[in-house]
Amino acid sequence: IMAPSGQKKKGILERLDAGEVVIGDGGFVFALEKRGYVKAGPWTPEAAAEHPEAVRQLHREFLRAGANVMQTFTFYASDDKLENRGNVQRFTGQQINEAACDLAREVAEEGDALVAGGVSQTPSFLSCKSENDVKQIFKKQLDVFVQKNVDFLIAEYFEHVEEAEWAVQVLKSTGKPVAATLCIGPEGDLNGISPGECAVRLVKAGAQIVGVNCHFDPEMCVKTVRMMKEGVEKAGLKAHYMSQPLAYHTPDCNRQGFIDLPEFPFSLEPRILSRWDMQKYAREAYDAGIRYIGGCCGFEPYHVRALAEELTAERGFLPAGSDKHGLWGAELKMHTKPWVRARARRDYWEKLKPASGRPYCPAFSMPDSWGVTKGHADLMQQKEATTQDQLKELFTKFKL
Amino acid sequence: IMAPSGQKKKGILERLDAGEVVIGDGGFVFALEKRGYVKAGPWTPEAAAEHPEAVRQLHREFLRAGANVMQTFTFYASDDKLENRGNVQRFTGQQINEAACDLAREVAEEGDALVAGGVSQTPSFLSCKSENDVKQIFKKQLDVFVQKNVDFLIAEYFEHVEEAEWAVQVLKSTGKPVAATLCIGPEGDLNGISPGECAVRLVKAGAQIVGVNCHFDPEMCVKTVRMMKEGVEKAGLKAHYMSQPLAYHTPDCNRQGFIDLPEFPFSLEPRILSRWDMQKYAREAYDAGIRYIGGCCGFEPYHVRALAEELTAERGFLPAGSDKHGLWGAELKMHTKPWVRARARRDYWEKLKPASGRPYCPAFSMPDSWGVTKGHADLMQQKEATTQDQLKELFTKFKL
Amino acid sequence: IMAPSGQKKKGILERLDAGEVVIGDGGFVFALEKRGYVKAGPWTPEAAAEHPEAVRQLHREFLRAGANVMQTFTFYASDDKLENRGNVQRFTGQQINEAACDLAREVAEEGDALVAGGVSQTPSFLSCKSENDVKQIFKKQLDVFVQKNVDFLIAEYFEHVEEAEWAVQVLKSTGKPVAATLCIGPEGDLNGISPGECAVRLVKAGAQIVGVNCHFDPEMCVKTVRMMKEGVEKAGLKAHYMSQPLAYHTPDCNRQGFIDLPEFPFSLEPRILSRWDMQKYAREAYDAGIRYIGGCCGFEPYHVRALAEELTAERGFLPAGSDKHGLWGAELKMHTKPWVRARARRDYWEKLKPASGRPYCPAFSMPDSWGVTKGHADLMQQKEATTQDQLKELFTKFKL
Amino acid sequence: IMAPSGQKKKGILERLDAGEVVIGDGGFVFALEKRGYVKAGPWTPEAAAEHPEAVRQLHREFLRAGANVMQTFTFYASDDKLENRGNVQRFTGQQINEAACDLAREVAEEGDALVAGGVSQTPSFLSCKSENDVKQIFKKQLDVFVQKNVDFLIAEYFEHVEEAEWAVQVLKSTGKPVAATLCIGPEGDLNGISPGECAVRLVKAGAQIVGVNCHFDPEMCVKTVRMMKEGVEKAGLKAHYMSQPLAYHTPDCNRQGFIDLPEFPFSLEPRILSRWDMQKYAREAYDAGIRYIGGCCGFEPYHVRALAEELTAERGFLPAGSDKHGLWGAELKMHTKPWVRARARRDYWEKLKPASGRPYCPAFSMPDSWGVTKGHADLMQQKEATTQDQLKELFTKFKL
Repeated sequence: IMAPSGQKKKGILERLDAGEVVIGDGGFVFALEKRGYVKAGPWTPEAAAEHPEAVRQLHREFLRAGANVMQTFTFYASDDKLENRGNVQRFTGQQINEAACDLAREVAEEGDALVAGGVSQTPSFLSCKSENDVKQIFKKQLDVFVQKNVDFLIAEYFEHVEEAEWAVQVLKSTGKPVAATLCIGPEGDLNGISPGECAVRLVKAGAQIVGVNCHFDPEMCVKTVRMMKEGVEKAGLKAHYMSQPLAYHTPDCNRQGFIDLPEFPFSLEPRILSRWDMQKYAREAYDAGIRYIGGCCGFEPYHVRALAEELTAERGFLPAGSDKHGLWGAELKMHTKPWVRARARRDYWEKLKPASGRPYCPAFSMPDSWGVTKGHADLMQQKEATTQDQLKELFTKFKL
Repeated sequence: IMAPSGQKKKGILERLDAGEVVIGDGGFVFALEKRGYVKAGPWTPEAAAEHPEAVRQLHREFLRAGANVMQTFTFYASDDKLENRGNVQRFTGQQINEAACDLAREVAEEGDALVAGGVSQTPSFLSCKSENDVKQIFKKQLDVFVQKNVDFLIAEYFEHVEEAEWAVQVLKSTGKPVAATLCIGPEGDLNGISPGECAVRLVKAGAQIVGVNCHFDPEMCVKTVRMMKEGVEKAGLKAHYMSQPLAYHTPDCNRQGFIDLPEFPFSLEPRILSRWDMQKYAREAYDAGIRYIGGCCGFEPYHVRALAEELTAERGFLPAGSDKHGLWGAELKMHTKPWVRARARRDYWEKLKPASGRPYCPAFSMPDSWGVTKGHADLMQQKEATTQDQLKELFTKFKL
Repeated sequence: IMAPSGQKKKGILERLDAGEVVIGDGGFVFALEKRGYVKAGPWTPEAAAEHPEAVRQLHREFLRAGANVMQTFTFYASDDKLENRGNVQRFTGQQINEAACDLAREVAEEGDALVAGGVSQTPSFLSCKSENDVKQIFKKQLDVFVQKNVDFLIAEYFEHVEEAEWAVQVLKSTGKPVAATLCIGPEGDLNGISPGECAVRLVKAGAQIVGVNCHFDPEMCVKTVRMMKEGVEKAGLKAHYMSQPLAYHTPDCNRQGFIDLPEFPFSLEPRILSRWDMQKYAREAYDAGIRYIGGCCGFEPYHVRALAEELTAERGFLPAGSDKHGLWGAELKMHTKPWVRARARRDYWEKLKPASGRPYCPAFSMPDSWGVTKGHADLMQQKEATTQDQLKELFTKFKL
Repeated sequence: IMAPSGQKKKGILERLDAGEVVIGDGGFVFALEKRGYVKAGPWTPEAAAEHPEAVRQLHREFLRAGANVMQTFTFYASDDKLENRGNVQRFTGQQINEAACDLAREVAEEGDALVAGGVSQTPSFLSCKSENDVKQIFKKQLDVFVQKNVDFLIAEYFEHVEEAEWAVQVLKSTGKPVAATLCIGPEGDLNGISPGECAVRLVKAGAQIVGVNCHFDPEMCVKTVRMMKEGVEKAGLKAHYMSQPLAYHTPDCNRQGFIDLPEFPFSLEPRILSRWDMQKYAREAYDAGIRYIGGCCGFEPYHVRALAEELTAERGFLPAGSDKHGLWGAELKMHTKPWVRARARRDYWEKLKPASGRPYCPAFSMPDSWGVTKGHADLMQQKEATTQDQLKELFTKFKL
């Protein structure tokens, strides 16, 4: 693998070991759903084979935005998932995975990016198949990644640390670097295993990079990775850390993350983060010791660019896409209206509290699983029955 | 021009005369700014020549979403604007305009879409150049459109009806159908000329289709076009009507539209319309007698698809992109979580009041030009000085 | 009637003719409902006879706050209303009206206040009794007012200008000054008669002071009185103007006012105006030429004091109650916490946008009569059927 | 002491030992500030001597509302406080304390209420006077309470448990029952001592009843008392529990409570709890094992009545004031408008999410002490410096 300069590209671990910031890309399923190539609900990546030009273009936009990683668009592309989600078999799982690898590689070669092959949670695990069966599922995707010679591997979007461990063990067998991210928040995985313990288990299973992706907003993800880091350090282990959060504000969600919010997945618009929210995220992630900083559902290319721009000093250069973006709105100086020109400054955008234009809508939603329509007596009873203590507190606190 | 079926495509007036619904595309400058190819502030379309793959892809996504019109990406591509906005002259205005025509035509041929060449307001008018000088500016872009044989012409994004009339007169000289849209709301143009009178003047200047684009949300745009229609009908004239609003909620803006909102252009996220808001817009526009229904800044392909889907019965078919979208969330039936499956119904999405996840932010902003930081005494005085009576009322009403 | 100084008190018209500001009191039924002496729903004033100490105390508090008028607590004390509302006849209507006069007089004598006897809309009018019958109802209350020698009379809280005219005609027969206020907003009375025309009719019927009370917030009331004033002046007539609005923000209500808001009457708390909102109201009312400035439902004594304090320069003195209130929070300088001491300034309180502490609640409600739970198609139809055009516009604009 | 029935009234401990619910009254300083008799900032109770009719009337209203305790209006009536707050010495501290006792007793005799004499935190403690000096301050007020023979004693509104212990020790010397409440939330006192430990120390100092008052909303207060109860039970001790929270929603405040919110004390209106919020509080407090359930700042008589009404079944009777209030809005059945009559049901009021009518205002405020105007870098640093870990988390989570 060569960088455009002709030099061999540095691998993911070389970069992180050297203390470099690695900018990740954004999530593909949400971005391509809005562009018309992915079905919400099934969320499968057949577009890699069906509409390669759309997938290639999105890779290119993330690359321009500063991403150092092109994740293969292979989310939910395990055979059991594709069947389960009613894929009409116009393309086989293998074809989809191969096409995704080729597209990621093609665009990665246009800049300083690596290709990462990814696997994620499986229906097989949820339906209690054996460890061996589940591992076979990962193995099948992995065979394609090995054949296509991706640069490193990511086990991502796992709600149960146990399944993630199995995935890491399989990926690890290739000798390639392995990253592992869970879609959990500060409360831990769906079995209640804490972020710290989850991280320790992933590192012991062989992951060199650990962290979280999806399900929660940047604030909650950074907080969760901080807990992971503390756990790993207390255990006397070492790892690199990554976070790939949502581009949606989710202060009101419960342990299931944004999936449980009533707005998921078709009315999340008022929650979308601005580029300035993203700069704050990049800074907080960096300050927390996270060096692989990317995004997941909701991220558009300009969100990734904002991460790269915030960390300009640390990285030493701007992303290509910044030729179309002045820092902190600098290019507004060229706007026709004088009052818009007055907005060309950091202070303005950092302090602005953006209005929703939605006077009939609240700031918070109550997650579906809390049964919002019941009377408070019922609610109290229901709350007693759950073990989500910390969330209950929040709920108790906010159910005005 | 042939439809994919091999039949000659119907022209824009044939379609509208026959009572057909024409779905427009969405705005390019905002969508491409988020993708990294347009600079906010200058808003010029050099990407047509610089990054044709990005522009082509966006055309294709709007086509898949159901758009019957591919507008050439020639916004602010008049020579005076390109100079004024610091275009580095890597490409001449002619090259940009030609490239934009070629891209629009290439994608239009992939489906049942027409190509529309567009001109918009000029710095020359604002700096009080003569009618002849301003018309020369339009003429120069028009020469490209004629040479590239676009299907019809649009004069769009005019704040002063006078300049729009000049544009229509120039466009009209080609013999091609002409549409004209102002970026005004119910208060009329920046000289206070009412929507009804504006529309009459545009029709008399030769426009066969009149309406509004940009600056206001769908509710306000439909209302404004309704006023235009009343004006035209009272004057005993005839026209077709179009609206291409923002995809941002702007109930709190003043006559300058969203440009005057503090969130413009980098913190508009909480105002983005959902697909369901778009279906409501399509219905209201249709019920108001508007048959050319499209969008402007903020529209993503899924917003256009929502317009086409709402009008399925009227159009008789779904857009290509609906192969990835069940009506009213139908495909959520395949989601893993039972409570998400329960959202696969119209009633759920129509009634949902989406939360912003932003408890520190308000529902409304005060437009910049009202001087929000002044004491109310000053404010009162300032208000006396303006002629924006209707807006002042709203302001008076809401400035809690 | 003597002022505490020993001088004869100036009458209401003397004061207004001299250009003085007259501060009104606040509404009794809401204040006493919260104190436990009035039933919401019936809203009858039997407490004047039943719990005189409570009524006396409230009069005293309004007096201390700066009120120049003690309105007799005779709201809904007409015989037909008392019967209609299930009054258990522990006290006759005459007893209640007499007790109310005595209490108002007793407290008025403690300061520079006048006593005003009030009548309001009757069930007899709504059930289509004859003009004569309705006038007899007013006459009966009036007999008490005359016998008790109140200083002037107010016909207030009328939704139909016709009934108010009848009331004015009856009150006028006494030779005492007559004020008349409707509970209407900018759209006019329930028959759609505009504020301007309503005011002209009231002046012609004999009222020397006209205006509005109840049902709308200060912004809307001032706006409505401004329309009344324009009407009266256009008709070449003369009058004094008064406003006695709610102490609740109601930007989202329709022609029925706050009664139609879902929060009426038991969840209006988040809408309560602050003292600073009241100062703004006093200033705006004064600037609009209103000189009798008071309040209605929701007003507590500190709200009335805020009116008097805002107009200190115009009136030349502070109310007695200001011995417990520094202007613009001045007394916070004595607070223990330094950051609270920093709030002792006008600028701080004028600019503050107070939070609701209610993240699950919206900024606006949809009035009940608009049928919020219907789909928007139904809603549109329903809207067509109503004549509330201006409100519909607002609704159209805001029904996000 | 005799009940109106002629029987000797049961003492506070007899009631609580028997498992009865004791309804407390509401806070006097805020209620009387709104009525014009207390200065915000100094918050001293000279009105007991200056305007006894106003204080008597408020006692009476709380009694009618169902309160079983009349707290003497002696808040901040220690000599050091009165001097410190610039009391003009029209009345001595002794006169104020005596007058307050007489008023409480007078009204208590009108119903089934006890008189409680109260002391609260002193400037002497804050200025590091010796234990003996501070105790002398309490002793001076206590001498009046003993001479006036109040029924029991309350040490309330302490931010430091140490000072509260001293107060309890002094009060205990009289042989009268002693209650002690801190103005703390779940984070504990200003030295970071947990609610559980605080409660244990108060019980060991001699308090038979422990709990919290002021500074936080009902949700947070109930949660804090729950923590106190757990602490006491773990220590193998016994106590009764009480809570007297604010009538303001404060989900966004920090350890200093509502004092640190920007709205304190003059723009708290949008945060006021409704009567339905109060019923929820009464239920939650009861379910948490709290039997002395009252209120503090912001409580009006109708709030106390709501507590008594929610616990009708447990108490076996309604308060006198319910003769003017149907349960759950029942009396709205007599309202003129049909849509208001439809609101006469529990389900309606329990589910309603009341709008603020304030579209320019947010749901949450950032406490002053967090330095809202700083950039987030500064903010982070500032946060590192504080020990308010749990609050920081909330802040981190919500600082959108």
